[in-house]
Amino acid sequence: MNDSSAYQPPRVWTWDKENGGNWASTNRPTAGATHPAELPRGNHPLQLYSMATPNGQKVTIMLEELLALGETEAEYDAHLIRIGDGDQFSTGFVAANPNSKIPALIDYSGDTPIRVFESGAILLYLADQFGQLLPQSRSERTEVLNWLFWLQGAAPYLGGGFGHFYNYAPEPLEYPINRFAMEVKRQLDLLDQQLAQHRFIAGEAYSIADIAIWPWFGGLVRGALYNAAEFLDVDAYKHVQRWAEEIALRPAVQRGRIVNRTWGAPAEQLHERHQADDFKGLSVPQPR
Amino acid sequence: MNDSSAYQPPRVWTWDKENGGNWASTNRPTAGATHPAELPRGNHPLQLYSMATPNGQKVTIMLEELLALGETEAEYDAHLIRIGDGDQFSTGFVAANPNSKIPALIDYSGDTPIRVFESGAILLYLADQFGQLLPQSRSERTEVLNWLFWLQGAAPYLGGGFGHFYNYAPEPLEYPINRFAMEVKRQLDLLDQQLAQHRFIAGEAYSIADIAIWPWFGGLVRGALYNAAEFLDVDAYKHVQRWAEEIALRPAVQRGRIVNRTWGAPAEQLHERHQADDFKGLSVPQPR
Repeated sequence: MNDSSAYQPPRVWTWDKENGGNWASTNRPTAGATHPAELPRGNHPLQLYSMATPNGQKVTIMLEELLALGETEAEYDAHLIRIGDGDQFSTGFVAANPNSKIPALIDYSGDTPIRVFESGAILLYLADQFGQLLPQSRSERTEVLNWLFWLQGAAPYLGGGFGHFYNYAPEPLEYPINRFAMEVKRQLDLLDQQLAQHRFIAGEAYSIADIAIWPWFGGLVRGALYNAAEFLDVDAYKHVQRWAEEIALRPAVQRGRIVNRTWGAPAEQLHERHQADDFKGLSVPQPR
Repeated sequence: MNDSSAYQPPRVWTWDKENGGNWASTNRPTAGATHPAELPRGNHPLQLYSMATPNGQKVTIMLEELLALGETEAEYDAHLIRIGDGDQFSTGFVAANPNSKIPALIDYSGDTPIRVFESGAILLYLADQFGQLLPQSRSERTEVLNWLFWLQGAAPYLGGGFGHFYNYAPEPLEYPINRFAMEVKRQLDLLDQQLAQHRFIAGEAYSIADIAIWPWFGGLVRGALYNAAEFLDVDAYKHVQRWAEEIALRPAVQRGRIVNRTWGAPAEQLHERHQADDFKGLSVPQPR
């Protein structure tokens, strides 16, 4: 450890706005709306408000998979929420998700609109709504949900822990980087052992467990997150690599991961998605 | 910031066993079993392997609530897993939960045993199994699950983030403490705004959302976690306080929170629970 032991926390914590690293402008110690603005609404029953972070990708991949399976009722409008600009703090967004995090879904298909927030909750909602990508039998369904919930508790260590301290914090701090690197490597080893025994995360069938975990851990081992592939020696996790590549080849995954994306190659950005034709001209497999 | 900028991460991360603070002995960069040992098994269909951490309390509170509702099939054996001793790394435990975290449940009620891990998955499994504490209507069920998933993603910031750096790390580091204190205060403010409008987390009915959130945030505002009540000014969150006190008065909560508990007053410790009579002589309301 270096000489940082001089710090002693105050009796009562107070907010110093300067001390947040990247994303400091979007982090606050209070919840709720900061400005009035309505959410846009398209023609489909499913209205998604999101951005193509790993949590955002989960839902657009799920919706593209459902459409690829022939579920025409899964047609959706995906509106862009620019989290760097604070769109998630509008009155409209906060009504959809008081936690001010993307993604948020509003389902207008029934008598009254239903708000769904937290990416894991949205995957479960859609899987149950369409009877897809989540097995019916009690034991198989339970194993998928075990891993879905696992991801929701694991991702904060990967993103808010490791990713933040390794990539976004104003300066590298040894103890937090070690703490979170160790945990992320444990998570990778866990997935590697599971995927040594099974083709997919929860068994032999592709499911919402894969859709939840791939944008995070698939992105990590494919070098797409935090510039950390060498630091974490991701090549050592052969089974995770095999699984990540197989999923990356799925047409619905290739489409879903670029919806609400505002970075990377222009041919891999679809800022908003309102109909299948919106993918025309982009470098992804076109919907049938 | 203090002068800690001298640190530069290595090209490839390696494990330094000395650098972990409290709980260092239970944290590793690899997954899987370290020693052979079978799990004990009692007489009931539901076998729980746990400890009375906040995540452990969720499930024992749930089971006591189900029994209080007259669900006699919710009778259970709660076996103690001493995580400080590494019980979670036995072959038996890893078969129940490859992630080596408490709680883990095995349900022997059907033709084949079903393993359930992740505390949120266990709450959902039991709620669906018994048709209790999770509303039937699509919109009400969805709102409960929104908040259940919210907790699973929020608790790592409270426990693995704030709690670790404020209470367990070998020395206090200013930047991580500020980062996680700000997030926990945002979470508290979010809950406070929600509970200003509703008696319980997801509406007017007590649900698995309350059972998930109370051990963490109820514990925090009641001063039971991390010695952080003054630092976080928890008295400012009046609605969270009101809710936390109401739930703390529930007999099933008072019983559930002491199951698999190995600290505190002896009259508030029930190391293992195998039948209702096991609460006799302890300072909690006795089951009917």
